[in-house]
Amino acid sequence: MSGRLFVVGTGPGAPGQMTPEAREAISAATHLFGYKPYLDRLDLRADQQAVASDNREELARAGAALDMAAEGETAAMVSGGDAGVFAMAAAVCEAIDKGPAAWREVELIVVPGVTAMLAVAARVGAPLGNDFCAISLSDNLKPWDVIEKRLRLAAEAGFAIALYNPISKARPHQLGEAFNILRAVLPMEIPVVFGRAAGRPDERITMTTLDGARPEMADMATCIIIGNVHTRIVERGERPALLYTPRSVPAHG
Amino acid sequence: MSGRLFVVGTGPGAPGQMTPEAREAISAATHLFGYKPYLDRLDLRADQQAVASDNREELARAGAALDMAAEGETAAMVSGGDAGVFAMAAAVCEAIDKGPAAWREVELIVVPGVTAMLAVAARVGAPLGNDFCAISLSDNLKPWDVIEKRLRLAAEAGFAIALYNPISKARPHQLGEAFNILRAVLPMEIPVVFGRAAGRPDERITMTTLDGARPEMADMATCIIIGNVHTRIVERGERPALLYTPRSVPAHG
Repeated sequence: MSGRLFVVGTGPGAPGQMTPEAREAISAATHLFGYKPYLDRLDLRADQQAVASDNREELARAGAALDMAAEGETAAMVSGGDAGVFAMAAAVCEAIDKGPAAWREVELIVVPGVTAMLAVAARVGAPLGNDFCAISLSDNLKPWDVIEKRLRLAAEAGFAIALYNPISKARPHQLGEAFNILRAVLPMEIPVVFGRAAGRPDERITMTTLDGARPEMADMATCIIIGNVHTRIVERGERPALLYTPRSVPAHG
Repeated sequence: MSGRLFVVGTGPGAPGQMTPEAREAISAATHLFGYKPYLDRLDLRADQQAVASDNREELARAGAALDMAAEGETAAMVSGGDAGVFAMAAAVCEAIDKGPAAWREVELIVVPGVTAMLAVAARVGAPLGNDFCAISLSDNLKPWDVIEKRLRLAAEAGFAIALYNPISKARPHQLGEAFNILRAVLPMEIPVVFGRAAGRPDERITMTTLDGARPEMADMATCIIIGNVHTRIVERGERPALLYTPRSVPAHG
């Protein structure tokens, strides 16, 4: 008899931002798969087994979890943030699409979570308060010219833009190029937020402008939000400034 | 002494999808403001006061909550989903931006939540597994031609598209027009998901194609996800079909 596979979004990292549903799924699993830093955040019981894998072995990890579930076990694939946003749910679906028939019989339950851009946005106000998009800058799996095109069209559309996977040791140059593409379309004074580890003890939130945005302000754990031309900064004296994108767009657009 | 205002995203509606942080914020508040259906979902204590208001009075509601907090109380503004996605966080920031100086002294805490598109995506697989955008179809606060332009550019960019506020009694025609705009750019066979009340007892998830998408399939509580040209359907016999947008984009884009 086939078992179950939970694909779980555990939220940005603060325990208070993980849903009860995610906590229950993790508790129900006998075998937990995922990138080691996400597994390390969990308080597993002695009867639960953690199977850590490298960040770039997603399809193999999905296959291992599906094998376990196909044997009748209850497995969980653990993602940070939301499982469906630049995370493991798509890799698991792809593995099922391309894999053996037995994997299609597994009961698959995707558990959503608070994705990074929502946590970062909350820390500064409401920069995603109007239409927005989310773009991964990783060109491991898609050509860079597709990313360039999406950045350009997103800016022309007037979306606030959340950038995931902005930089890594293997990809040091993409983020600077991305800012240059946006600078060619958008005004220099548009607010930009670098949100690292939002809600966690090592949180670091930096507000700047498109003009002042530098790749060195980001690392792998950073989500960057670029406002649109209407995004406003509200100074509040001793309290931190607020950043929000108004719900309304003037008639001249 | 100025008090606190929490702006709380309570998630899609299932109790298991509300974060502990959101639950704590609601518990801490003496006065809770919001659209009545969201307030009705909460188990308030006898010493807590609910102040319900109409869906279209957002700035006035924000002002009432800020007044209460400025008097030293702990208030909470309750949103469904995430507070920052087409919800109350932007209205509260705008009220502070335009309002009296006392409102800037209020301690403002935005609590993020699982937004509707993530809950809907999780129910069908991973349709938001690559770059995506979120667009509100409401033209109460922005001109329809801005919405048309954003839809067209989003389709050209190859984003999966989540549509919020797709239809209402006052706006019966926008959704059909939106589908027509997308049909002019995208192939007819692109998968479309209508997700109503995801995770709640009255959940209704409908999968169709851009060709088959009809405005009657949506109501105010529906979030619609339109895939991109690479989005795939995985048939699984007796189990519901999966829908996912691959993490990879081929070199020819």
